[in-house]
Order: sequence, then structure tokens, then C-alpha cells
Amino acid sequence: MAAGSIPVQGTNWQKCRMIADGIPYEDVDAAIREGVSGDRPPRDDSWFTYWSARGEDYARLAEEALAAGRKLSAGSLFWQASLSHHYARYNWHHDPERWEEGVRKQVEYYRRGSPYFDPPAERIEAPLEEFRIPAVLRVPPGRGRFPCVVLLGGLESTKEESFLFENLCLQRGLATCAMDGPGQGEFHRQTGFRKDFERFTSAVVDCIVQEPRIDAQRLGVLGRSAGGYLAVRSAACETRFKACVAYGALYDLSYWDELSPATQLNFAFFAGYSDIEAGGAYLRPIMNLDDVIEQLRCPLYVQHGARDQVIPVGQVDRLAAAAKNVSQLVLDVPEEGDHCCHNLHVTARPRMADWLAEQLGGRLG
Amino acid sequence: MAAGSIPVQGTNWQKCRMIADGIPYEDVDAAIREGVSGDRPPRDDSWFTYWSARGEDYARLAEEALAAGRKLSAGSLFWQASLSHHYARYNWHHDPERWEEGVRKQVEYYRRGSPYFDPPAERIEAPLEEFRIPAVLRVPPGRGRFPCVVLLGGLESTKEESFLFENLCLQRGLATCAMDGPGQGEFHRQTGFRKDFERFTSAVVDCIVQEPRIDAQRLGVLGRSAGGYLAVRSAACETRFKACVAYGALYDLSYWDELSPATQLNFAFFAGYSDIEAGGAYLRPIMNLDDVIEQLRCPLYVQHGARDQVIPVGQVDRLAAAAKNVSQLVLDVPEEGDHCCHNLHVTARPRMADWLAEQLGGRLG
Repeated sequence: MAAGSIPVQGTNWQKCRMIADGIPYEDVDAAIREGVSGDRPPRDDSWFTYWSARGEDYARLAEEALAAGRKLSAGSLFWQASLSHHYARYNWHHDPERWEEGVRKQVEYYRRGSPYFDPPAERIEAPLEEFRIPAVLRVPPGRGRFPCVVLLGGLESTKEESFLFENLCLQRGLATCAMDGPGQGEFHRQTGFRKDFERFTSAVVDCIVQEPRIDAQRLGVLGRSAGGYLAVRSAACETRFKACVAYGALYDLSYWDELSPATQLNFAFFAGYSDIEAGGAYLRPIMNLDDVIEQLRCPLYVQHGARDQVIPVGQVDRLAAAAKNVSQLVLDVPEEGDHCCHNLHVTARPRMADWLAEQLGGRLG
Repeated sequence: MAAGSIPVQGTNWQKCRMIADGIPYEDVDAAIREGVSGDRPPRDDSWFTYWSARGEDYARLAEEALAAGRKLSAGSLFWQASLSHHYARYNWHHDPERWEEGVRKQVEYYRRGSPYFDPPAERIEAPLEEFRIPAVLRVPPGRGRFPCVVLLGGLESTKEESFLFENLCLQRGLATCAMDGPGQGEFHRQTGFRKDFERFTSAVVDCIVQEPRIDAQRLGVLGRSAGGYLAVRSAACETRFKACVAYGALYDLSYWDELSPATQLNFAFFAGYSDIEAGGAYLRPIMNLDDVIEQLRCPLYVQHGARDQVIPVGQVDRLAAAAKNVSQLVLDVPEEGDHCCHNLHVTARPRMADWLAEQLGGRLG
């Protein structure tokens, strides 16, 4: 593991990502000024300590707001607490006890704030075999049956992290259902990544189509970072999806050897391994869209930063060439875009939400 | 004028302020990396050039979004364009031609985006003698008569800049009416600061009480930075205001000699002078709450950073001691707060919106 591999200092796209996802700029800035390091024990554990403390600060303020009846503020503050704990334990999987503590608080504070979000988040636990797949549904206010977008994270992104992107969808009349699949967030306790990830997405779809506020004919799926792989795979295998967004293209792991050791370790952890070699050996043959890509028929939108530092932009060409049977293909590859275009989020994220609204019959104005 | 007096580098509260008001972190970050300087001609004019260019970038994207029917996105992007131009010409009053160009674009792009904001902004021009006072009204969706908060800026803050704070109010069922008074924003063309500023606030109130969606019995006023002075003065003289927030306390200019030359120049410009001596001589005797403070009866909320770098925290004590006749006084003075608590905006701004909702009968959840 490279020193400083969770860089708040130096690696700008990570700062952009955290801020774009809702971490206050002033918290990132204070972390830098206080010398919070991306290193890990035994060198340093200031990262986990700092972000956990921020999480507890927000949770305390959330409880105070709730006690005063200020429910909207309580909701925002609990979400802020959840997000801080998310980033505390982010890539902290070398230390299972603290990783677990971070996930537990992330989930707990999100759940505590859920009734007060605007609109609220409703927890789903979709059954599949022995599993209970956790997801959160948010539905726009008002009457009617709404289209719905299933949101997938990547290696270390989770259902609690997509809140601000959900708001863009909700504003456009789209319900959202963010889920943790095999290897992700709290569901990592139940199983690491599995080749049949798409069955888990479909199990969540089975739940949401029973919800009377959701229009089962107008479902989409979006996956972020490595979730770009998961979304395409899910949409190829699930004809109920009428639109697919790869918010980051990932076709296969042919570029494994080009990955940084830190990213390789994240992939391994995602797969359920603590060892890069073993994780890579498990993942490389099975994380590949070859077996399903020709089944993908629905419109596909791919957003990928041309200078992505994590997933090479060559994966876009590979995906575009293979997705021969889609009814529409949009490639949105800004030259100045970093990983997931986090550094351009103000302009790049609404484009995906607009496209989903166009495909699924949301509103654009 | 001190070199670097519009500091994007170095002075952290200014960065926090810009980001809290909606400037993307990545734009501030890119400005720093590109060496954009707070200096001014003849030393440097990179500040104006950089932020104007960002404004034009967002305006171009806004036009593209509008042409594609993506109205919500167009609204956000036009507002982003307006805000970039606001900060381009921010404190740029040594160069009247460019200052005017910045204000013109700030107002034009805001106006162009107004129908597409969520909810829209509706322009008002309130008549008073030979003046037309510009303001923008935003009303929550749905039926009914809503409470309304009149929002005042300070020396170089304007009605286009309060958008995100408006959203906090709107979410809580409060309509907002942001105005430019004497010395502020586009109204600076008509007149500099006047001792009878409160008459201009009341002229705007005369307009909004005629609006059937506004409940004339539930009006509040909030003023930011030097606007804290203007809000208290307006509320003291206008019994239709049922709540007042000083988002930054300013009682008088007894601390004039402690101000930085840059701030003194801003005050002078606000007053309509290009010269510090003349501006100070005009303002110091008339910018004082002594003549009206005993008339203030309505509840007063004061938020002020204990380490405010612009307005000494002693102004809070002065205001609190003098406001003897208010029915409620809340002092919210966080120890770690910078000017206007911009560095704590995630927690501090919702507190003001919640308090206003409590006083005026908005919603808290």
C-alpha cells in the first residue's frame, strides 16, 4: 500500500469528489490545515479520527435540532453525520474493527435522518436466497406514479453517498432507489462481489415495482465508478430497465496491471479478499461484460473523464464498441474531466439527470 | 489599497464565503492553481478576467441547455453565470467600466435564468420618488399565502447572491424577496448609501404586501454583513416586520480606524465615493443605530462569528445592549466563526432559516 493512498492532500479529484458529494469545503480545508494525513496505522491514523469526530459533531447538532423540532435541519445534519463517517472508514479496510464502526454509524445516522429528508428515504430490504439487500427509496412529493432510477455505487461508494445526485433526480420528477449490492457498504458483511451481481439488482427491482407510487414501465439504472460496470451488466440482464447510465465506464479488468496498488486493494476488498493477488485472481476472469453486452438493448449514456486517474479512458472505447445493440448511445467524455468528472460535477451531474428524465418521462423544467 | 486585497489565496473566509454562496470549489481551486491573483491593475487583472471567463462558460452551457429544453439545468447554469460575474466585479470598483460590465452581466444572466429557477424568481421594481428599487420575489410552490423574508446584502453583496439561502427559506415554506438598496448592486447606479435606507426597504414591502400569495401579517427581514445594520434599521422603522435577523451585527462605525484600507474603500464606494477620506466623513456620522434602536420591538436574532475579521465582535455587545425593547433577543456567536460564519455555513445558515420559520409560521419539517 502506497503511503498517502487516501489523499486529502495533493490528489485534487478526491477533494472534488468529497465536496461534490456533500462534505463541506471547510471540513476538507480544516483537515488539511490540521495536517490530517492519508496515511494509515502504524504510520498515522489521523484520517479516521478526524472524520469520525466530524461525524459525531454533526450527529450531536442533529439531535439538538430534532429536540427543538427542527426536523428539516435534523435530517440534513444526520445525513452530514452519515457522510462524514462514510469518509472516515473510506478505504480503511485494513482495520476491520474501525471499518465496521464507520459503516455502522454511517448507516445508523442515515437511518435516523431518513424520515426528515426532503423527500424522506424509505428503507427496503429486498430478499434473495439467504440475503437481505439494503436499499433506500425516495419518491418525489405529490400524487402519481413516478419513474424510478436504481443507483449503484462502485468499490467504496455506497447508497448513503448519492444523496445530492438523488436530489437532482427528484427535482426532475424521478424517484430514486440507491442500493448496496454484493461487496458494497453494509452489504459487504453478507457477501463480497459476485459475478451474478445483476440478480441482486433485479431483486431490488422486484421490490420497487410493487410500490404503487412507482411506474414499473419507467425504470432506469445508473452506476458510478466501478458501478458503471454493474449498471451495464444489470441493464443487459434486466429488460425492465429502459435506460442505463455508466457514470464511469468499466468493461473489464484487462488494465489490472496499470492500476495503483491502492486501487487493486480496493478491488480485492470489494471481492471479499484482503490480499491483492487473491482478489485479483478471483475478479479478473469474472468482471467482464463479454458474456452479456450483446443483450443490452436500452439507451446507454456513458460519462467518463478523459483524464480519469483510476479507470483508463480506453474503457469507454471498449464499451462503446461492444454495446452494438443499444437503441441509443451517448458518450459524454469531457477532456478536462477527472475520475467520474467529480471536478466538473456542477455541470456534469445534471446532464445525466436530464438525460434520465428525457428517457423515463421525468420533467426538465 | 493593500496588494492582494481580494484574496482568493490566503484569506480562508473569503474562499469559504464564495463556496458557501455557490461558487464551485473546483473553480476556486483552479483559480489558485492558475495563479489568479487578488491584485488589481496596473499590477494584475487576472481576477476579473478569470471569473468573467467562468461566467461566460456557464452562460454558454445555459444557452445550450435551454436550446435542448433542459430548463431546470438552464436555470441553475444561468444563476452560476450570474454568480461568477458577481465575483468578477466584486470589489472591482477602481475600474468603473469593468465594474459596470460585471454588474450588467450578473443582472442579465440572473434575469435570463429566473423563469427556470425552482421556484422561479419574479422581478419587482418598487417605486419611491424618482427611484425604481430592484428586487426578486420567490414564492414556495403550492396554494396559500406565505410568510415572506426581505433579504438585504451588505457593501458588495447583492440580491443575486442570496440564492442558496433563499432555498433554505423556501424549503421551510417562507417566500423570499431579495433587494438591492441604496449603494448596492445594480441600484448603485441610481444612488449610493443614504441615511434613510429604511424608506427603501419599506417601499419594497409596499409592493410585496399587494401580492396575493404573500401574507402581509407575516413579514421578516434579514441583512448580511453590513446588511445587519440595514436590517435592524429597517425593522426598527417598519412595524410590518415581525422578525429581524442581523446576519452579522453592525451598530455604528465607531471602529472605523480599525478597518483595513480595503474595507474602508468598500464602505466609501458603498456611500458613493471613490475616496476613503470623503466616504468615511460622509458615512461615520450617519451610519449609526442610536436614533432608531429603541423603536425596535420585534424579535431579533444576531449571528456573528466571534473571530470576525471584518466587523469586530464588540458590535454584537453594542447592539445587544441597545436593543432594549425587543420582545426576544437571540445571540448566536460561535467561537470559531469567521465573518458572517461563512466557514460554518452548513450548520449556521439553517439555524437562521429555522428561527425565521418559527417566528413567521413557516414549516420546520
